[in-house]
Amino acid sequence: MTYADRWLLPDGIAEILPAQAEDIEQLRRDMLNLYHRWGYDLVIPPVLEFTDSLLTGLGQDLDLLTFKVTDQLSGRSMGLRADITPQTARMDAHSFKREGVNRLCYAGHVVHTRPKSPLATRTPIQAGVELFGEASLTADIEVVSLLLESLQTAGVEQLNIDLGHVGIYRALAAATQLDDQQEMALFTLLQQKAVSDINVWVAEQIAQPNIAKLIRALPALCGGVEVLEQARTLLSEYVPDALQAIDELQQLAAVIAERYPAANLYFDISELRGYHYHTGVVFAAFAPGYGQAIANGGRYDHIGEVFGRARPATGFAVDLGALNSLGSTVGLLEPGILAPEVSDALGWNAVQQLRQQGERVVCTLSESSLVREELNCDRELVLESGQYLVKPISK
Amino acid sequence: MTYADRWLLPDGIAEILPAQAEDIEQLRRDMLNLYHRWGYDLVIPPVLEFTDSLLTGLGQDLDLLTFKVTDQLSGRSMGLRADITPQTARMDAHSFKREGVNRLCYAGHVVHTRPKSPLATRTPIQAGVELFGEASLTADIEVVSLLLESLQTAGVEQLNIDLGHVGIYRALAAATQLDDQQEMALFTLLQQKAVSDINVWVAEQIAQPNIAKLIRALPALCGGVEVLEQARTLLSEYVPDALQAIDELQQLAAVIAERYPAANLYFDISELRGYHYHTGVVFAAFAPGYGQAIANGGRYDHIGEVFGRARPATGFAVDLGALNSLGSTVGLLEPGILAPEVSDALGWNAVQQLRQQGERVVCTLSESSLVREELNCDRELVLESGQYLVKPISK
Repeated sequence: MTYADRWLLPDGIAEILPAQAEDIEQLRRDMLNLYHRWGYDLVIPPVLEFTDSLLTGLGQDLDLLTFKVTDQLSGRSMGLRADITPQTARMDAHSFKREGVNRLCYAGHVVHTRPKSPLATRTPIQAGVELFGEASLTADIEVVSLLLESLQTAGVEQLNIDLGHVGIYRALAAATQLDDQQEMALFTLLQQKAVSDINVWVAEQIAQPNIAKLIRALPALCGGVEVLEQARTLLSEYVPDALQAIDELQQLAAVIAERYPAANLYFDISELRGYHYHTGVVFAAFAPGYGQAIANGGRYDHIGEVFGRARPATGFAVDLGALNSLGSTVGLLEPGILAPEVSDALGWNAVQQLRQQGERVVCTLSESSLVREELNCDRELVLESGQYLVKPISK
Repeated sequence: MTYADRWLLPDGIAEILPAQAEDIEQLRRDMLNLYHRWGYDLVIPPVLEFTDSLLTGLGQDLDLLTFKVTDQLSGRSMGLRADITPQTARMDAHSFKREGVNRLCYAGHVVHTRPKSPLATRTPIQAGVELFGEASLTADIEVVSLLLESLQTAGVEQLNIDLGHVGIYRALAAATQLDDQQEMALFTLLQQKAVSDINVWVAEQIAQPNIAKLIRALPALCGGVEVLEQARTLLSEYVPDALQAIDELQQLAAVIAERYPAANLYFDISELRGYHYHTGVVFAAFAPGYGQAIANGGRYDHIGEVFGRARPATGFAVDLGALNSLGSTVGLLEPGILAPEVSDALGWNAVQQLRQQGERVVCTLSESSLVREELNCDRELVLESGQYLVKPISK
């Protein structure tokens, strides 16, 4: 093995250097402070736990994204968390005794076996909120509002939110009496928005002409709030069970448009993001020029059931790395004060006093290891007539 | 599998609930702010990377603590970091082009396959600093000072620092001409402070009576700064190469005692903490009633060599969970304001304005999900004569 090999990081796994790291740290604090002000309590779930807790009932997608290791103490399989949401659901079901609404927030690394999209990192840093115990749309309205607030706080200029509702597809699949295999096949085609494949599939599999027409129309049902009325017209006769979902999206859109007039709301009736554990409104935030979603969320009402306590739930997670690449953060470290080698009490006290005032003070350790231009200092501490003074560094 | 099984966390892996999580988050910020003021630049190393990068040259201890997974993209072995220090050494050697001193800091989870001590967590949250590029004792003095500053900042009342120097044992082993196996055996015995076993071992293995006497004396060489003079007397004749290490400890002790008169310095000549990668001064912080070290550190000069750039290095890591259990943090969440269901713009604006002022405002989502006593609010927002007012909640 050469030196060069040891330097390499695995594909899709990145280290973060100071300028960007300081920005991400600031974003992390801004997000957690924001969630605190909205009444969300911080939790720190473990970075790994038993796969039985982490993955039960969540479907194959998350399973394949999760690294597994064997617990040497119990011999059981543990997973590195690929998603923090199921952990908070377990905590809501078991660790909290709250009967009413339970609002939780978190920030931390998740790890994926493979990038979720070609350019995605396998170790995203996420911040997010989860709201348990409220089944009504008021909870979805709160979390979508808080997502928009997160984007604004991070300085994201265009607030683009994609909205969908898995209830529409669920109702359609029920009305069409698709078997599990058919439903999965159609689900995959719709996720890929493979229009011509959908048409072929529909011609082969769907006997009822009205339902066939409906399914063929689905991928085109996307755009501004007006598509909700189009969807209502199309679905009302044959899939009346889907209308409640349309109602919810319309109510949500009305409140969000009033609260955040600058937000661009984009509706996609066939959007099924995270279908395997979502049960209601689903949403994501996008930005021009950034290929992946910068945040994902939605309602997932039954997830706590495997822990013996099914509670309504909704929430979202934002990717802090993505936010950082989009937002108006500074990207520059604040310059400091260069101090000489301080061996006397006078010098040490001068340095410590400046630090207590919030200054960044970098001490010289020896002349041989001092490379001034690497230290980002614009002032220096100098001893003049027995006193330590801060002076600008002359270029 | 029963519900109860799914609730269980693996032994030694903990989730952290709100009151403690808020305290740990505050400590994390306080530590990173402190390190920033001392000129340490924040980095975010990845939570896993190739084992070749993570473990090369660091010995078996760290290897056994590290969970391994296979990278699906390259087929190579990756490790979950059990220690952040080697990652920063790789970054210093490769990712930074700094010729002079490079000061780095970090905060994050590490993961251990087994608890390092019976009651230790397997997922500690660490914050730490590393100082590269300065071989002289001034660097060690800076990092020990910064560790004491960290403890003070966290509100730890008793500042207890254990200090040792692996140069003493190295010199003794060289003077005694122990082979590798003998050195390892003695090392293990000394780490365990197994006095009677040491005496038996010495009688069997060491022919020179003066060296035998020296080794037998080592475990008792611990206490205040006066043990350094005792050690000097003992070692001066037969292990003169150890005297430089004694000098360094004495100089360090003198500066630290002047800067931090409240600190209790405890010297342990046979202390070999982290011997496998340390090369000079080693130290740890302890607190009464807390069985494990709350911080560990020391000099590790050759670690970057495997990455093609051997640089002098020293640093430490503190366990934020341990700090939190010792420090004078609050442990209580600040109470907030309970808002009614707000569907009108007037109510929404009132809520948002309070949040912008830094208030924690918790909205009622529906009467059925409202459990007031779970929400930690001491005031409420009420509508009176067309105006929203904040009023105390009457008990």
